[in-house]
Amino acid sequence: MNEIKNSALLTDLYELTMAASYFEHGMNETAVFSLFVRRYPPNRRYFVSCGLKEVLDYLVELQFTEDDLEYLESTGFFKSDFLSYLENFKFHGDVHALPEGTIFFEEEPILEVTAPLIEAQVIETFLINTINLQSMIATKASRCIHAAGGRSLVDFSFRRTQGIDASIKVAKASYIAGFLGTSNVLAGKQLGIPVYGTMAHSFVSSFDKEIDAFRAFAQTFPENSILLVDTYDSLSGTLKAAQVGKEMAGRGEHLKGIRLDSGDMAELSQKARHILDEHGLKNSLIFASGAFDEYKIQKILSQKAKIDSFGVGTKMGVSSDAPYLDMAYKIVKYNSEPVVKLSPGKISLTSDKQVFRFLSSKKLYDHDVIACREENLEGAVPLLVPVLTGGKTIYDSPPLSEIQNQFRENFSRLPEKYKAINKKGPLYPVKISEKLRNLQKKTIDKYKHREIQ
Amino acid sequence: MNEIKNSALLTDLYELTMAASYFEHGMNETAVFSLFVRRYPPNRRYFVSCGLKEVLDYLVELQFTEDDLEYLESTGFFKSDFLSYLENFKFHGDVHALPEGTIFFEEEPILEVTAPLIEAQVIETFLINTINLQSMIATKASRCIHAAGGRSLVDFSFRRTQGIDASIKVAKASYIAGFLGTSNVLAGKQLGIPVYGTMAHSFVSSFDKEIDAFRAFAQTFPENSILLVDTYDSLSGTLKAAQVGKEMAGRGEHLKGIRLDSGDMAELSQKARHILDEHGLKNSLIFASGAFDEYKIQKILSQKAKIDSFGVGTKMGVSSDAPYLDMAYKIVKYNSEPVVKLSPGKISLTSDKQVFRFLSSKKLYDHDVIACREENLEGAVPLLVPVLTGGKTIYDSPPLSEIQNQFRENFSRLPEKYKAINKKGPLYPVKISEKLRNLQKKTIDKYKHREIQ
Repeated sequence: MNEIKNSALLTDLYELTMAASYFEHGMNETAVFSLFVRRYPPNRRYFVSCGLKEVLDYLVELQFTEDDLEYLESTGFFKSDFLSYLENFKFHGDVHALPEGTIFFEEEPILEVTAPLIEAQVIETFLINTINLQSMIATKASRCIHAAGGRSLVDFSFRRTQGIDASIKVAKASYIAGFLGTSNVLAGKQLGIPVYGTMAHSFVSSFDKEIDAFRAFAQTFPENSILLVDTYDSLSGTLKAAQVGKEMAGRGEHLKGIRLDSGDMAELSQKARHILDEHGLKNSLIFASGAFDEYKIQKILSQKAKIDSFGVGTKMGVSSDAPYLDMAYKIVKYNSEPVVKLSPGKISLTSDKQVFRFLSSKKLYDHDVIACREENLEGAVPLLVPVLTGGKTIYDSPPLSEIQNQFRENFSRLPEKYKAINKKGPLYPVKISEKLRNLQKKTIDKYKHREIQ
Repeated sequence: MNEIKNSALLTDLYELTMAASYFEHGMNETAVFSLFVRRYPPNRRYFVSCGLKEVLDYLVELQFTEDDLEYLESTGFFKSDFLSYLENFKFHGDVHALPEGTIFFEEEPILEVTAPLIEAQVIETFLINTINLQSMIATKASRCIHAAGGRSLVDFSFRRTQGIDASIKVAKASYIAGFLGTSNVLAGKQLGIPVYGTMAHSFVSSFDKEIDAFRAFAQTFPENSILLVDTYDSLSGTLKAAQVGKEMAGRGEHLKGIRLDSGDMAELSQKARHILDEHGLKNSLIFASGAFDEYKIQKILSQKAKIDSFGVGTKMGVSSDAPYLDMAYKIVKYNSEPVVKLSPGKISLTSDKQVFRFLSSKKLYDHDVIACREENLEGAVPLLVPVLTGGKTIYDSPPLSEIQNQFRENFSRLPEKYKAINKKGPLYPVKISEKLRNLQKKTIDKYKHREIQ
């Protein structure tokens, strides 16, 4: 039934062919790999980490099934001794990572893996895929939250997320960033995220008259009706909704609100507010949907729109202005030796590391220092925490609502200048410790000397 | 284990609350819903249909499990008689659809559902999600194929697709559009798509010296080695690869090729070709990867790059310049009455329809006519075919390789002017039949008269 579950085959072929060659040459010493984002996408100056829970679930359960091995054999790429090795394959490594909901910056390690080379290699694709999607969406969603200035947001993106898995992860990442909930029923069931919904145009169209549709819905959901008013004309629709709202009030019920979905939202929302108020429906809310993201929310609110809550869909759900992050997973140490690649524009920071965050006297984020893992910078908070040791989880992922609270607190400590919606604000200062800088220089020099002819 | 499988809860909450209200009011007459794309995204003048197979699998297996119903009950939105109704819920409708690999245009129905209202309603989210993603990627991938002018392309997008489900669907959609295969091992296993791979920088970094890494890989894969040459310096790396290629030739083996992944690809590829040729490796190919999409492929080839094959990753895998389609699923008929919504900019075509394609004397696509379903336009091919009747599949999805062939044939019939990469070409002519035009006018007039105050 078109089922997707975690599988050791959720990987690129080259991870396995490299593993086969490592195996053949007896190369399986301890390696350290580091996961980070190289550069900010447009209009971003921070990121929000998300996806660690799924990575940990994957790592502790990783194994090749008999079926998987049969398939690999059928490709003709692999020898039988390597396939036998995969039969008992497990992940035995250590992982340090940023807890979900941590604010981080470009070039900072989000997660570092210390494991036998083959184990650290074959997990690359899944790790990037998982952390990239969720961190990208949590970042985008946090921008929507910031633009909305306290108004509530609901994830309406399911129909246009890039696939089913993405729909669940978007519901999760946007919830962590502060969304009230999601329209996605399976995400509600699987992750305990509150579910919300209104009605579609098809509901209105199915009835002879718009007002019949409104009355029917109000009858079924006397406390939970948000009436969609733009099927034919938004203000005509609002008048009918107001009439139904009055009828409900007469029965001791309450019209929760109306939804606008097209047209000039600033003007329509002001007029709709006026209509509702005049009908004694001051407590009925105005919801808006239709191509909202942080840019459109900011614009519409600057035009004094009277909107209480936004349904935020497609553009958040695919992070449309930045639909991927330049995220990489690079080997930084092998067999105790620091390594580095020198490809133009892609030089990464060598060795196992820690990120230290310094706060200002007002407890705002002041600057970070990326240092060697064993360093200890006084007065700073180390951000990467040990989450897996010897392949065993030593970290309990908190409930999503707790991560949401933690993120809200973190976000309040990030100075406003780094949260600009429409432009690139200043760069948050991320420094490299002297020790790491020296090691980096030494390592680059070694490879330049050794490899470039 | 973070498992995603088809589930009746893969839907927006409002589909189910609307269904509950329909149920309460005994409204379950036959409805027709139509799925289409409203408008072209930037630089597109055609689409490629993809995703029907997954929709059919979903529809025939659709049911609410006991677990699902318990969750729905726990939300407090639903009454017990509606939940009882869902216990035996199945999809009993008819579906007409474009076969996968069909070229279509904006406003044309891709799929139409004729079913009891509730059944047609609750499937909306899954249908849009599935067809939107796959058609968007098949379209993007076909543009890459077009730009590459016969050079082979491989899907390298897995690490940055938006989730796991997307990774599989991207492998499928790009294969249908003409890609040679994918790096995605699970897609290879599940869908029988050929898998390809080279090596990563980490492989090179794990060895003391770059040339040791090349020799080790060549030893493990004497017929399948594509050596990544840019870990330290692309031309130094190519020289070492060429030396290993000569050693292989001496053993009667063959270096399949090298991969460039950074730098000025036009210049580097010319120099690398020269180095390989001078070492007697004229049959060793040059692969290139790194942010390729149709735009970069076109540009690099116009600069006379000597590239035989491209690894096409992130930008294709998320359709980065158009990460969603403006796809909608609208009710067009209820209880035998045509319906239409009038929201500004979102008026859709009423009633059940057929798309007729007219060919020129040279058998090229000339123009389409959208007509009422029952019309029969002589000399034209009707594109929507019946795929499901009374909830039962009456259509066998062809093997992917056959769809790929069929698409290649279709694409050759689409005139070049609609395939422009860098600009909006002319609009392919899509006309509305007189009968449908009259029905549309009559229906709009009815609703304007009835609903707008």
